[in-house]
Amino acid sequence: MQTLAELGEDALLRHLAGRLPPGGCLRVGPGDDCAVVGLPGGGFDLLLKTDCVVEGVHFEPGTAAPRVGRKALARVLSDIAAMGGEPGEVLVTLVLPPALPAAWVDGFYDGLLGLAGAHGVRVAGGELAAMPGTGPVVVNVAATGRVAAGQAVLRGGGRPGDLLAVTGLLGNSFASGWHLDFIPRLEAGRWLAGRPGLHAMMDLSDGLARDLPRLAAASGCGFTLEPARLPLRAGATREGAQGDGEDYELLLAVAPDAWPALAAAWPAAFPGLPLTRIGALAPPSPGPPPPAAAGWDAFQPHPPPMPRPGRFADPTSQRQDL
Amino acid sequence: MQTLAELGEDALLRHLAGRLPPGGCLRVGPGDDCAVVGLPGGGFDLLLKTDCVVEGVHFEPGTAAPRVGRKALARVLSDIAAMGGEPGEVLVTLVLPPALPAAWVDGFYDGLLGLAGAHGVRVAGGELAAMPGTGPVVVNVAATGRVAAGQAVLRGGGRPGDLLAVTGLLGNSFASGWHLDFIPRLEAGRWLAGRPGLHAMMDLSDGLARDLPRLAAASGCGFTLEPARLPLRAGATREGAQGDGEDYELLLAVAPDAWPALAAAWPAAFPGLPLTRIGALAPPSPGPPPPAAAGWDAFQPHPPPMPRPGRFADPTSQRQDL
Repeated sequence: MQTLAELGEDALLRHLAGRLPPGGCLRVGPGDDCAVVGLPGGGFDLLLKTDCVVEGVHFEPGTAAPRVGRKALARVLSDIAAMGGEPGEVLVTLVLPPALPAAWVDGFYDGLLGLAGAHGVRVAGGELAAMPGTGPVVVNVAATGRVAAGQAVLRGGGRPGDLLAVTGLLGNSFASGWHLDFIPRLEAGRWLAGRPGLHAMMDLSDGLARDLPRLAAASGCGFTLEPARLPLRAGATREGAQGDGEDYELLLAVAPDAWPALAAAWPAAFPGLPLTRIGALAPPSPGPPPPAAAGWDAFQPHPPPMPRPGRFADPTSQRQDL
Repeated sequence: MQTLAELGEDALLRHLAGRLPPGGCLRVGPGDDCAVVGLPGGGFDLLLKTDCVVEGVHFEPGTAAPRVGRKALARVLSDIAAMGGEPGEVLVTLVLPPALPAAWVDGFYDGLLGLAGAHGVRVAGGELAAMPGTGPVVVNVAATGRVAAGQAVLRGGGRPGDLLAVTGLLGNSFASGWHLDFIPRLEAGRWLAGRPGLHAMMDLSDGLARDLPRLAAASGCGFTLEPARLPLRAGATREGAQGDGEDYELLLAVAPDAWPALAAAWPAAFPGLPLTRIGALAPPSPGPPPPAAAGWDAFQPHPPPMPRPGRFADPTSQRQDL
């Protein structure tokens, strides 16, 4: 019988997406950074997102609890940012071994609530359950967000010729600690969503090598990438900027005639935060897209040449949005 | 250092509730069956709920995947029922060992989508991650619901003298399979929410012995229970009806002068489904409430005299709403 590791995550996602069509007031279902739900009368759409972190996969055993709590929330905020949304309420599920020190939970909430308070996010409720045996800790955060009706920025709005750009720096997220301490680009996402010519956006969580083809495919496009232009974090290689993953930066597709004004206005709006043009969308190539050469698949060992730093108990996984 | 097992779930919940106050458009935060969010303009409130099932805790290893998927969704629907709400969208998180047969995921969705379709629920998105090693399977379902603005039925609306009643039958949920195949009381919840004199409602998940004191405490009341009146599932004892847990029935508090009309109208509305008066709310007792004598605590072994049936890998846990 075929296992998840043998099937692979992308094949499973394609299969599941066919079983989970949008409809009714669900305007955007599985496949984008967030789901989009149309609400009657309020003039805005509801964004929905769920995301988990697993000890030994998304954080090392022994990571300080506040950094775990902060990361668990920051990941969903990054997805809301990629829609141009404003975060609302979150629901927190903790599956914990009974022998865990009770103080761990307080530390977890210290980190989560610190970030929540900075963005006006409220914890609306949650769930506690025991993990059998000694672990691992599993955390799930589900979030709501809001965006003006019809204004959510999707992955699928790109057009051939659009310029591709990324916020911030890429690569070396693990050794640098960025994967724990990253800044969800909420303000940047909203600012970008309001610019003319912004056609598509997503957050980079599995690595550009895996995420860029997803944006291009959702837009019905091919793409060209200029690796020499990639903005590298200290210690990152050009390959790592594509395959390390967990950058939590925004990838955007902008109409070429809108790019000069956007790029000119950016530095005053976000001083110190790079916005870098890295390529362009292209007409679709004939035939099926090639498999991603790097980046994370939830159920398969990470392929060379970008091995996961050996600090995790199990290097086989990353998350994936349905 | 004090562990979660030593602290106990109720003490942790009380502590966390103090850190997670409602406010802004969050009308009801942690502590009820669902959170309630006020939305501008739409005439309705949003309900939010998250809930998880863990292999070896909430279902046995080897349980057929469709029953796991059905249960994972049914649990959150039961909480929406307890608010008198209508379910909307759900987000599904699967944390799975990479060696799991891929067909398990399809079976899981067979069960989940079967129940979802019966109630107009749509899967809006989800998350896939690998569980390190060989397991356990962890599933989280986060759900939205809707209720007319200000009309959500809370736990805290009961008054001394209100009659207490339960839908359905109690006890022996595990051996009978009810804990997997139960029917979330969505129609009953909405019907009850619309009756005059319905003051408070909650779903019974941890056992009446644990849940009834929660409703009473939220209402600032004490209570009297008539054990001889408890409606027993086949094979259940009177003690099991209080402590077995996972009944997923509705517990309600009704003004005594409204009860006769409600009880008279019930059989025609829900033929074959018992609605049983089991006690009453009372003025609050002086001093702190006694600890629950039975029912489930997430982080402690289940106390005698209601041992968990020995079919689970780890009998130490149940879920708890924050």
